[in-house]
Amino acid sequence: MAEYQASTAEQTLKIDDLAALEPLVKANMEPGAFGYIQGGAETEWTMAENTRAFDHAQIVPRVLQDLENPDLKTSLFGIPLQTPLIDAPAAAHGLAHEHGELETASAVAAEGTIMSASTYSNERVGDIAKAGHGAPQFFQLYMSNDDGFNHWILDQAVASGYRAIILTADASLGGYREADVKTGFQFPLPMINLADYSANDGSGEGLNIMQIYAKAKRKLSLADIDAIASYTNLPVIVKGVQSPADAMAAIGAGASGIWVSNHGGRQLDGGPASFDVLPDIASAVNHQVPIIFDSGIRRGEHAFKALASGADVVAFARPLFYGLNLGGIDGVRSVIQHFNQELTITMQLAGTKTIEAVKQTELLWR
Amino acid sequence: MAEYQASTAEQTLKIDDLAALEPLVKANMEPGAFGYIQGGAETEWTMAENTRAFDHAQIVPRVLQDLENPDLKTSLFGIPLQTPLIDAPAAAHGLAHEHGELETASAVAAEGTIMSASTYSNERVGDIAKAGHGAPQFFQLYMSNDDGFNHWILDQAVASGYRAIILTADASLGGYREADVKTGFQFPLPMINLADYSANDGSGEGLNIMQIYAKAKRKLSLADIDAIASYTNLPVIVKGVQSPADAMAAIGAGASGIWVSNHGGRQLDGGPASFDVLPDIASAVNHQVPIIFDSGIRRGEHAFKALASGADVVAFARPLFYGLNLGGIDGVRSVIQHFNQELTITMQLAGTKTIEAVKQTELLWR
Amino acid sequence: MAEYQASTAEQTLKIDDLAALEPLVKANMEPGAFGYIQGGAETEWTMAENTRAFDHAQIVPRVLQDLENPDLKTSLFGIPLQTPLIDAPAAAHGLAHEHGELETASAVAAEGTIMSASTYSNERVGDIAKAGHGAPQFFQLYMSNDDGFNHWILDQAVASGYRAIILTADASLGGYREADVKTGFQFPLPMINLADYSANDGSGEGLNIMQIYAKAKRKLSLADIDAIASYTNLPVIVKGVQSPADAMAAIGAGASGIWVSNHGGRQLDGGPASFDVLPDIASAVNHQVPIIFDSGIRRGEHAFKALASGADVVAFARPLFYGLNLGGIDGVRSVIQHFNQELTITMQLAGTKTIEAVKQTELLWR
Amino acid sequence: MAEYQASTAEQTLKIDDLAALEPLVKANMEPGAFGYIQGGAETEWTMAENTRAFDHAQIVPRVLQDLENPDLKTSLFGIPLQTPLIDAPAAAHGLAHEHGELETASAVAAEGTIMSASTYSNERVGDIAKAGHGAPQFFQLYMSNDDGFNHWILDQAVASGYRAIILTADASLGGYREADVKTGFQFPLPMINLADYSANDGSGEGLNIMQIYAKAKRKLSLADIDAIASYTNLPVIVKGVQSPADAMAAIGAGASGIWVSNHGGRQLDGGPASFDVLPDIASAVNHQVPIIFDSGIRRGEHAFKALASGADVVAFARPLFYGLNLGGIDGVRSVIQHFNQELTITMQLAGTKTIEAVKQTELLWR
Repeated sequence: MAEYQASTAEQTLKIDDLAALEPLVKANMEPGAFGYIQGGAETEWTMAENTRAFDHAQIVPRVLQDLENPDLKTSLFGIPLQTPLIDAPAAAHGLAHEHGELETASAVAAEGTIMSASTYSNERVGDIAKAGHGAPQFFQLYMSNDDGFNHWILDQAVASGYRAIILTADASLGGYREADVKTGFQFPLPMINLADYSANDGSGEGLNIMQIYAKAKRKLSLADIDAIASYTNLPVIVKGVQSPADAMAAIGAGASGIWVSNHGGRQLDGGPASFDVLPDIASAVNHQVPIIFDSGIRRGEHAFKALASGADVVAFARPLFYGLNLGGIDGVRSVIQHFNQELTITMQLAGTKTIEAVKQTELLWR
Repeated sequence: MAEYQASTAEQTLKIDDLAALEPLVKANMEPGAFGYIQGGAETEWTMAENTRAFDHAQIVPRVLQDLENPDLKTSLFGIPLQTPLIDAPAAAHGLAHEHGELETASAVAAEGTIMSASTYSNERVGDIAKAGHGAPQFFQLYMSNDDGFNHWILDQAVASGYRAIILTADASLGGYREADVKTGFQFPLPMINLADYSANDGSGEGLNIMQIYAKAKRKLSLADIDAIASYTNLPVIVKGVQSPADAMAAIGAGASGIWVSNHGGRQLDGGPASFDVLPDIASAVNHQVPIIFDSGIRRGEHAFKALASGADVVAFARPLFYGLNLGGIDGVRSVIQHFNQELTITMQLAGTKTIEAVKQTELLWR
Repeated sequence: MAEYQASTAEQTLKIDDLAALEPLVKANMEPGAFGYIQGGAETEWTMAENTRAFDHAQIVPRVLQDLENPDLKTSLFGIPLQTPLIDAPAAAHGLAHEHGELETASAVAAEGTIMSASTYSNERVGDIAKAGHGAPQFFQLYMSNDDGFNHWILDQAVASGYRAIILTADASLGGYREADVKTGFQFPLPMINLADYSANDGSGEGLNIMQIYAKAKRKLSLADIDAIASYTNLPVIVKGVQSPADAMAAIGAGASGIWVSNHGGRQLDGGPASFDVLPDIASAVNHQVPIIFDSGIRRGEHAFKALASGADVVAFARPLFYGLNLGGIDGVRSVIQHFNQELTITMQLAGTKTIEAVKQTELLWR
Repeated sequence: MAEYQASTAEQTLKIDDLAALEPLVKANMEPGAFGYIQGGAETEWTMAENTRAFDHAQIVPRVLQDLENPDLKTSLFGIPLQTPLIDAPAAAHGLAHEHGELETASAVAAEGTIMSASTYSNERVGDIAKAGHGAPQFFQLYMSNDDGFNHWILDQAVASGYRAIILTADASLGGYREADVKTGFQFPLPMINLADYSANDGSGEGLNIMQIYAKAKRKLSLADIDAIASYTNLPVIVKGVQSPADAMAAIGAGASGIWVSNHGGRQLDGGPASFDVLPDIASAVNHQVPIIFDSGIRRGEHAFKALASGADVVAFARPLFYGLNLGGIDGVRSVIQHFNQELTITMQLAGTKTIEAVKQTELLWR
């Protein structure tokens, strides 16, 4: 395999809108890697519906509300955030940029929000933490069938100061991602955490995502929540929830947060848009624990609608990946700043001064 | 900046339909100026939905109603109108034509309806009034943070005989208009009222709309309604209302009219089509004050549907702009005449002889 | 004006489906004439929706119903019909073929169904009757403001043996047909009935449809029904009904039949699909008088759905026009035969042996 | 007629997704034959809606369900199946491959599921049975008007060990398939069972499907069910049911299974998507007899949705035909294996370990 040529770009981006980054990244990246990052499962109906679904509800603007300078600050688990947007976990930032997760971490920290480091990162857990310079970070666990690995990686996360563990619950198997099938994409770079733990088990390099997931634990269960929480003494966020029943079961089993997501449409195709299931989940959770929402957000208005439908914070991964690819640290920051600009405008025009006010807003569902 | 070349056309237009004017204007105008006039906010979903939404309700034609020659005459605040269409306020008619608002005012007066002069006009408030030769006109106020300016401009409006003040409530910040972002559009001509008041503060020339709005008052509040009404002794119409709650609050705070509009989809994207929120607002207002409706009207049938859904008069701006660009005074008149022709045909075929009868019509919502 | 070159084709047509005839006719006819025949009003939304609306309801096939050879025979006003399809009235068959209405009448008669001759035909009322060789025909009246003309033409219809008068109620003004506006279409041939009555008033030649309708009576009223019925002693069918209220009023005023139609989307744009209003009208009429349905039918399945929704017989005009243009008498017959074939297949597969059984079928509305 | 050149391919296929096979087959087959296999009735609305309809319901993924290795095994009439997918009957496999049904039977048997042999096969009933090497098979009867033929063919089916008779109820006449009309397709190969019975009646060679169906029994009735059951002592499955009423009538008349199908959209156009009528039929049947479902399934997720909506097993024909054409025995096996892979992934991600669990799943209808 020829050596993978990752981007080395370092620049502030002039961003018209986040969707417009995709063709630029496509032209700037090896097709297989781009397909892996951009693609969804099977027909990509669920992936596309994720974004289309935001049109199912409208923001009714309120006027003459005597406000200016909307404030995007909020908090999660007591962690103050400069924006209600956090970084959604994603494998292999090294595909986007030679310094991968290190630059993402640095940029996200500079923007005052949370980086979610993946088990399948190309940089070490501890190095990502250092790149964040003490900013709060979450660690996303893909559980292994080897509990030795799970303990080893969680030990590092705890030692590195991560503030919560994200348990990926929706990847007990790899979704059928046709872009990867068609390009024959295999990870060109080692998953460094896997490599460090045991050379025998392999680093993931030269495998595709289905093969990597195949080494992970499939029999994920509610008991894993408490096991992780007890082992780490950290809040556990269950990521990949799409039903009120699972949300309530996870909370009952010790989850400190619910991450409503369908993995950006990359796992189960034929499932609902993540936004469409959010209101019922939020209604069931009823503020017992915070709700993080992802899947399909590309606009400030999308975030507004998710927050108004029960999310406490929102997240995305692909746009940050695109920023990383096109501009490194400053590229990621440009993406967050652009998002913040759109959300600020939306809040002002909707007549909402605070994130709390956004959450109180009633959307018009059609 | 090269000097802006505005149209000098003076001609009657042969109009097939108003939508067909847009490509003609696009070919006839500098791209940045055209983008500013034509474009909407962000994805332009709300802008497009504004017109699509008229398909949500259908006019059930009534036959054998023993009528001919439908009568478009109506009135607003006791002002007799030859048509239920008035001119919606819009900044910078100078982009469309070298004589800008003067020609619009002249044409609108000749067609027996109301010109709405904008704070951000390229012609002086008093000159626009004179160009109307005594025809009734409204003045649209973009409030400044500088109350001195507000008083100065309102004084002129009163002195010039304007009949009502339109308080723009939905522009406490500029919408994110991607066409302007992409073209880097800046106003090539001075906003003459700003220029007159104070050279220091600038005329708007060389700024984009977000920068201009940034100089305006963001903390618009209900109290502004009565302040303007008391200062001018003129009826105040609150423009940009999209919810029954805001309509009722504005009336409670002294509004003499409610202008249902989402600024033609140029402010908040992700909001509902203006037509879709009209019936509930009308129901709440319940004829306490007149309702003016805009956003998306391009056809006589659209106007019919808005009138049948609670509007007392309707308005649009872009088609008049297009007429102004392509034909000056006669171009604007051609647009109004074409609209009137379509509305007349619709009324006859729907079996409605008067605007009052149109208002009594029940649409078929699907 | 150069002499109009009408088709002289005489041939049986191999028809795949009726929609496929349209491009053939387009290639075979002067653009203005084709635009007049094919086009609808304004945006053509209602015209397109007419056909799309048949997808709003589905035929649930019934199996093992012990039947074969479905029988298309039915009757209207006691007139036996070989098919539930009759010819919808349309002006100026001379545009399609040099022998115009004479060939249509001959073909329709041969197929055992009813020709509807228009006031605005290119052949004389009496000649059309003769061409039908005694087959039952209806006469469609566009009322004139000149009662002399109305009496003169009705006298001819009665004398020629027409069996019913169709009062066109939805054309008190010409719809705004953009194809005609764009091509500047004017009728190249005289409306022979107009010409015969008075050379002074003109034959319609050199006028467009809006100018011709402008000479017609606009103040159509319920009283016209009884006036025509009394004068002719023939059943009067009111054509252009789209609401239960108008249907009931017409019956109350003496109508012997209700023709549910929106003139093929050629009059009021922004109105509902004719099929969508049919069930409520049928429910109100409740079999007091027969219902004829047109607008949008291009398939046997469409006719089935209309019959199952309350129509007693169905009609169309454009496909017959296309058959006339491409093949004269045999072309018209080919169109009817193809339609009959599709309807027969639909009936058999739906499990309905008779037209009466079709009418008893419950569709699945979605 | 030039001799038909059928495919002789024998190869395992690399399948991205089943829909992607269609263009490959189109390039590999004579246009008329491809049109016959791929095409649907009239506008193909029902055909397209069959697949679109699966988007009407969504699978809500369940997480942390403590499961792995979902099990696709199920059974039908006590016959164990390795997958809930069976082969839907289809005429003339010889169009796809020189060994036609023999290879399909062999492949289906190897994959542990059921072949449905058609009356209109190109291989003899007995030979197909032998090619299955004892694997369970069903025989699909197109009833003839000649009871002699019916008895003769059923005798063979019984003698050859077929396990059930599928009575095709929705083909009492051929649907109007425009692809066949346009290409003038006639079967280039004999229907061997027809040929064997009587040379006089013809083998179907040189006829189109409408002509072949025309020789079949049209007056299919409920009494046929018991007649076949009594004659064969085999369970009779009624295929082509789209309504609860027909399902209950068939069961009352002795049916041992209900096959919900609209013949892949090849018979009645303008009918509902088969998936849309499934829930109500399942609700009425209420597990009295098993339900087989086909029409539109192209994905594992579609099968999941059908099973979750009341189907006991699912079926398709076109994708198997495509596999047969492109790869013979191994091609058919590749198709089944790919389908199984998709269904396995869907089941794991949905949180369902068994087919029984899939059936208990509640979909989210929108």
